Amino acid sequence: MTQPATFEQLWSAIADIGRDPITGGYRRFAWSDADLRMREWFSGECASRGLDLAEDRMGNQWAWWGNPDRSVGDPSTGSGRTSSGGIVTGSHLDSVPDGGAFDGPLGVVSGLLAIDRLRSDGFRPQRPIGVVNFVDEEGARFGVSCAGSRVITGVLSPDRALALRDADGMTMAEAMRAAGQQPELLGPDPEALGRISSFVELHIEQGRGLIDLGRVVAVGNGLWAHGRWRIEIPGEANHAGTTRLSDRRDAVIGCARAVLAARTAAEAHNTVATVGKISIQPGGVNAIASSATAWLDARAASEPALRATLAQIEAEVAASGAVVNEESWTPQTAFDDALVSRLARLLDNAPVMSTGAGHDAGILANAGVPAVMIFVRNPTGASHTPAEWAEPEDCLAGIDALARVLAELAGAEQ
Amino acid sequence: MTQPATFEQLWSAIADIGRDPITGGYRRFAWSDADLRMREWFSGECASRGLDLAEDRMGNQWAWWGNPDRSVGDPSTGSGRTSSGGIVTGSHLDSVPDGGAFDGPLGVVSGLLAIDRLRSDGFRPQRPIGVVNFVDEEGARFGVSCAGSRVITGVLSPDRALALRDADGMTMAEAMRAAGQQPELLGPDPEALGRISSFVELHIEQGRGLIDLGRVVAVGNGLWAHGRWRIEIPGEANHAGTTRLSDRRDAVIGCARAVLAARTAAEAHNTVATVGKISIQPGGVNAIASSATAWLDARAASEPALRATLAQIEAEVAASGAVVNEESWTPQTAFDDALVSRLARLLDNAPVMSTGAGHDAGILANAGVPAVMIFVRNPTGASHTPAEWAEPEDCLAGIDALARVLAELAGAEQ
Repeated sequence: MTQPATFEQLWSAIADIGRDPITGGYRRFAWSDADLRMREWFSGECASRGLDLAEDRMGNQWAWWGNPDRSVGDPSTGSGRTSSGGIVTGSHLDSVPDGGAFDGPLGVVSGLLAIDRLRSDGFRPQRPIGVVNFVDEEGARFGVSCAGSRVITGVLSPDRALALRDADGMTMAEAMRAAGQQPELLGPDPEALGRISSFVELHIEQGRGLIDLGRVVAVGNGLWAHGRWRIEIPGEANHAGTTRLSDRRDAVIGCARAVLAARTAAEAHNTVATVGKISIQPGGVNAIASSATAWLDARAASEPALRATLAQIEAEVAASGAVVNEESWTPQTAFDDALVSRLARLLDNAPVMSTGAGHDAGILANAGVPAVMIFVRNPTGASHTPAEWAEPEDCLAGIDALARVLAELAGAEQ
Repeated sequence: MTQPATFEQLWSAIADIGRDPITGGYRRFAWSDADLRMREWFSGECASRGLDLAEDRMGNQWAWWGNPDRSVGDPSTGSGRTSSGGIVTGSHLDSVPDGGAFDGPLGVVSGLLAIDRLRSDGFRPQRPIGVVNFVDEEGARFGVSCAGSRVITGVLSPDRALALRDADGMTMAEAMRAAGQQPELLGPDPEALGRISSFVELHIEQGRGLIDLGRVVAVGNGLWAHGRWRIEIPGEANHAGTTRLSDRRDAVIGCARAVLAARTAAEAHNTVATVGKISIQPGGVNAIASSATAWLDARAASEPALRATLAQIEAEVAASGAVVNEESWTPQTAFDDALVSRLARLLDNAPVMSTGAGHDAGILANAGVPAVMIFVRNPTGASHTPAEWAEPEDCLAGIDALARVLAELAGAEQ
C-alpha cells in the first residue's frame, strides 16, 4: 500500500485551479472550465482510492467506500433494524467570484482524507461512507444557491433551473450540455437521496465564533432564517445643476437613508442586514435619479427578530415613499438534534453554533435527511473573499474530527 | 411670398424625431440617426428661407441671413469702425437620454422664427444674422458636454475628441464618419468664430426662477462654477450572512453617508450637490461591498461657496476612509456685461439670472466671444426629463424677445 496523500498534497493540487493571479481569489463557477477541472480532480482522487463514483440526475458527484444500496443493520442506533444507505460527507468545489480557497473544497478534501485516515487505521465501516461534491452550491453563475441539492430534492424544478441564464445570457441547460452533462436528466432524485442515512458537511467557519471561544471545531446545529428584499425608492428625474435642493425628489437620497436604516434596524434587533447591490436610474453623473433599487439581504438566528428587523426598515423607508418587496424567504433550518448532541459529545464537548450562511446540508435537512455540520476555525473570520483562511493544523484537526464522526456513525464491521 | 411658418408647424415637424414612445422622452444622441434627421430638418428649414448654410470644422451648422464675411459698420456701438461677423443665435438639437423637447431645439426653432418675424416686419439687418446648431452639446454619447463648441474654440483637442468612445465602444471619429462627417477636419476654427460679433442663446429655463418671479423671459448673465468629483469609499469584502455587524467594513455604508453628507453640505452653503451615479464592488446581493465609488456633481453661483461645500463633504467622508478626487473643475463664467444690461433694458427690465447648467454660450464666452442668454419660463422647473415644459404662448414671447434683440444688435440697414 502506498503512503496516503497528505493534506498539503491534495490542497496544492487544486490551489491554482480557477485562481485569479492578481487578487488570489477563485472563480470556479458551475460548469466553467475551472469547475470541470475541479470535478476531474475529484474523479481522479476517487479512482486512486478505489471509491465508486456515480453522478445523480443533477450531476452531483458521489464517491462510495462500500455499497450504499446493500441493506445493513443500523450501527447508528444499535437496533437490529436493517436499512440501506450510508454516511455521507463532502461539500462543494465551486466558488463565488473572487472567493476563498476553503469555502467548499475544505469539506471535500477533508472527506477524502478522513477516509484515508480510517483506512490507514485499519477501520472497516459497517455502513458505507460516501463523499459528495455538490454542483453549483454558490449560485454565482445562475443566481440560485445550492442548485445541486435543490434540484435533487425537488425544491427547484428542472424547468426553472434549466432556463436560468448567466451574465452572458447562456442558460443552465446550455452550460451543462457544453460541459458534457445531460440536462435532459435533471430532476428530483429520490434514489440518490435514499442512499444517505446521515449527512455531515464539514465547512470552514464564516465568522469569528471559534476565534472568540478559543476552539478549533464546532458542531453546526442549524441555519438562520434568511430573506432577500428589493427596496424600490421613487424619485423625480431632474437636472443636477439647475434644480434647487428644496425642489428635488432625489431617489439616491432615499436609497442612502434605506442603507443606513437597514444597519440601524439590524443593530437594534441583533440580526444582520446588508445592502450589497444598488441600481440607479438614469445613473448619469449630472442627473438627479428618477428611481433607485437597493437589494437587502437580512438574516437572524430567530425568525421573529428577522421580521422585526424588516418591519423597522419598512417603517423607516416609507418616509421616502419606498416600497419593500420580498424576493425570497427561507425559514430557519434545524439540523438533526440527535446528531448534533452526538457529535458535540464525541468531539470533546465541541461548541454548538448556528450560521447565517446557506448550505447544501440545510437543503437536505429540509428534505428530511438527518444532517449536521462541522465548522473549522477561520482566523480572519472572513468569507467569500481571498482573505478567508484556515491554519493547516486546524484543517488537520478538522479531518481528525470528521474521521471520528464517520467511524462513529458508520460503525465498525462486526 | 408664402405665409411664414408658425411655431406649432415647426415644433410638430420634429416632435416625433428620436422620441421614446413609452416615456415620451428624447434620445437624440450626437451623430445618431435621430440627430441626423434633426440636422436634415434644420438644413431644409434654412434652405426654404434662403439662408446660406455652412458647416465648420466640427460639423456645427451655421445658417446665415446676409454675408458674415463682408465688413460693415458696427451698429451695436454706432461707431464708424467697420468689422465683419454677425449676430448669431441658436442652440443645439441633440438631447440627454430621455430628455425633454425644449432643451436645445427651442433655441434653434426660435432663431428661425425670429428671422421670419423680422422679415415679415420688413426689417433689413445692417449686420448679418446667423442661426447655429451646435453638435453634441449634451455629451450624452461620448461623455464630454459642449463638444461642438469646445473643439472649434480649441478647448477640446481633436485627438482627445476623436478617441472618445460611446457605450458601444465606437469612437467619435467612427461615429462622425458613419454619419457622413469628416473627422479629419476636426480642430479649432478661428474663421467660424470670427464670424460671430455677438452670440445670443435662447434656452428654456432649467429651474423655477421665472415661475417664482411671475415673469416669462429672463436674461442670463453667467454660468455657475461647476465641478465633478469621484468619491472612493473603501470596504472589506465579506459574507453578508455570517459577518457580525461589528466586524464589518461595508463600503455601501460609507457610500450612503457620503450621499447624505453631500446634501447636508450643499444645504449649509446654499449650493447644489448631487450623487447620480454609484458603482459597488463586487455588487452581489449577499456580499458586503469591498469598495464603492460615488460620483459627485456640485455647483454654485460663487466659487468660494462651492469650495466650502466640497471641503465639508471631504471632512465628513474622511471618517469612512473615503478619498475625494477631482475629475473636473469649471470656474464661473460671466457673460458680456454690456450685452446683459442692454438686453435686460430692451426686454422690459427682464430679470437677470445665472444658471447651474453648462451651455455653448459659456464656452464661447470663455473664448472671448461676447455672449449672453435668454431664458424662457418652464412651469415644471424640470430639466433633462420629459416633464420639461414651456407653454406655447411663452415660447412665442421668447421668439418675440429674441427678434427684438436680434434687430437691436444687428441694426437696421441705413
